[in-house]
Amino acid sequence: MTSLESSEGGTGELNLIRHFRVHAPKHPWLAVGPGQDCAILNWAAERDLAFKIDQVIEGTHFLLKPNSSGDTVATPYQVGWKAMAKACSDIAACGFWPVAATVAVNLPKNTDAQLAMELHRGICACCERFSFALAGGDISCSDNGLSVVVSLIGEGLKNGAWLRTGAKPGDILIVTGSLGGSRMQKHLSFLPRLEEARQIRSIIPNGVHACIDITDGLSRDLRHMCDESGCGATIFEKSIPHSADSVKNASIDGKTLLQHALEDGEDFELLLAIEPSAAQQLRTRHMHNVQLTIIGTVEGADMGCGLVNQAGTREPLPDLGYEHRT
Amino acid sequence: MTSLESSEGGTGELNLIRHFRVHAPKHPWLAVGPGQDCAILNWAAERDLAFKIDQVIEGTHFLLKPNSSGDTVATPYQVGWKAMAKACSDIAACGFWPVAATVAVNLPKNTDAQLAMELHRGICACCERFSFALAGGDISCSDNGLSVVVSLIGEGLKNGAWLRTGAKPGDILIVTGSLGGSRMQKHLSFLPRLEEARQIRSIIPNGVHACIDITDGLSRDLRHMCDESGCGATIFEKSIPHSADSVKNASIDGKTLLQHALEDGEDFELLLAIEPSAAQQLRTRHMHNVQLTIIGTVEGADMGCGLVNQAGTREPLPDLGYEHRT
Repeated sequence: MTSLESSEGGTGELNLIRHFRVHAPKHPWLAVGPGQDCAILNWAAERDLAFKIDQVIEGTHFLLKPNSSGDTVATPYQVGWKAMAKACSDIAACGFWPVAATVAVNLPKNTDAQLAMELHRGICACCERFSFALAGGDISCSDNGLSVVVSLIGEGLKNGAWLRTGAKPGDILIVTGSLGGSRMQKHLSFLPRLEEARQIRSIIPNGVHACIDITDGLSRDLRHMCDESGCGATIFEKSIPHSADSVKNASIDGKTLLQHALEDGEDFELLLAIEPSAAQQLRTRHMHNVQLTIIGTVEGADMGCGLVNQAGTREPLPDLGYEHRT
Repeated sequence: MTSLESSEGGTGELNLIRHFRVHAPKHPWLAVGPGQDCAILNWAAERDLAFKIDQVIEGTHFLLKPNSSGDTVATPYQVGWKAMAKACSDIAACGFWPVAATVAVNLPKNTDAQLAMELHRGICACCERFSFALAGGDISCSDNGLSVVVSLIGEGLKNGAWLRTGAKPGDILIVTGSLGGSRMQKHLSFLPRLEEARQIRSIIPNGVHACIDITDGLSRDLRHMCDESGCGATIFEKSIPHSADSVKNASIDGKTLLQHALEDGEDFELLLAIEPSAAQQLRTRHMHNVQLTIIGTVEGADMGCGLVNQAGTREPLPDLGYEHRT
């Protein structure tokens, strides 16, 4: 590792590492935290483990400096939060809960210590919000831009992970929250749908047949789920919940709300395929702070993916999707 | 994610991801591999979990193009191997065994597919060599150089991980292999000392009091162990095993073999503090393909870290260490 330039406060790389070690969120299963060759966890018997790696890279997933398109600039805190929340979103999509994260940060040379501290604060805020540990990390400096890689392990019911592969014809398609316009702001500060997934699991323990987090737009991610489950689907334009930022975004770029919902990236909402009677149970139970919307049904593979438009006509679902840029 | 430029063979990012999914080493505990939101593992009851993240970055940990100092240039295969083996070395230092890895790769824009395939081949070769799974990954492209982040989970005896903190006065200090000159070649192709650790564990189940992998030079890593264990140490110059590459390196740069052993980085050998009777047991048992050398003893904290030179005089251990550069 090359040294981080010492700032006036003497906050070189070693000081940063010391700070990060001391201010590391904990978890009851974490027996040995940062500062050893590995973190060590006492894994609970009869709990499966979800394992994920994800990265956010300057210029691709966030900007620290304004660009020519006027895209939203992120604070270092938001970069840390986003890096961690993005990995949490995948754990949520499995119906699991995060236990411990490790983080590899590559700082641009001459990064000031304040940026690193703020980044760390954003990372820890997400760990604390969802009560899991920051178990270790690695800091490096290079001539590259800022990148943050998060590896996350989560725990859940033995053989009970939600996958993309289990959707069945007749299942009800439900989304959490609202869609579109994430790049206006939400992609930097979103809450991964962990609590929503936990509440759904507790009400209908076996009712979720498949789940995916919407990161590439509803169109592409619904297609992913259908491809992997070997089925088709019908969704209803009039049922899709649009975010306030999608409305704002549409007024700027002239796209329709439907386009934003179908093709915008990084919504980080969950799309679930739920057994019909379980979906009925969800509708009748009070859920705390959870917005769920039925947007369609799973069909046989021969039906392909279709969209029923405002006029009531079923058309092939447009093949739109998002290439992450900023 | 931005697209990898399509090459003549049509090998864009998606094709690469498909290739990586199909050619992913497995592990019996891996219930769900690449292609879902998370990998899922059936963790065995009564086994602890070691968790590690590590990164190798172009220009810092390897070179793909010659530099002005004439440092060794790595092949993409070697970069993949090194990224994975480096994380394995930390798992070995805990006396654990790797179960599954996830990898985040950031490719420079316009990377040719061949490079990505070779990188992947190096990554998989290490997984296969030590029989653990490649459970998932993320590929991104940016204007930055190549970087590979590996997250690794390993398994081992409940409450049985070797740490840096357990060394006791009277313990025997032992190193695996030989030291120095790693940057000549070894840092790109080394074998992490997993099998050595496993054999040691099987012969003396409770005999290892502390362990660390030597990545920053013997001087600095011995100091780390002593600092964390609250003790001192004495090592003997005449006992230190020097590598053939260290001899070669010393003939080029004019440093002594001792300097190379004390300050060269990335040896990836293990330094162990072993209870004296257990060390005796190790000496009398045949070990397969394992080179172990006694280099000194652990002392009380008041002794500090000392080196007995060729003349038999104990001096303070020089405070040398390695800043990873290439």
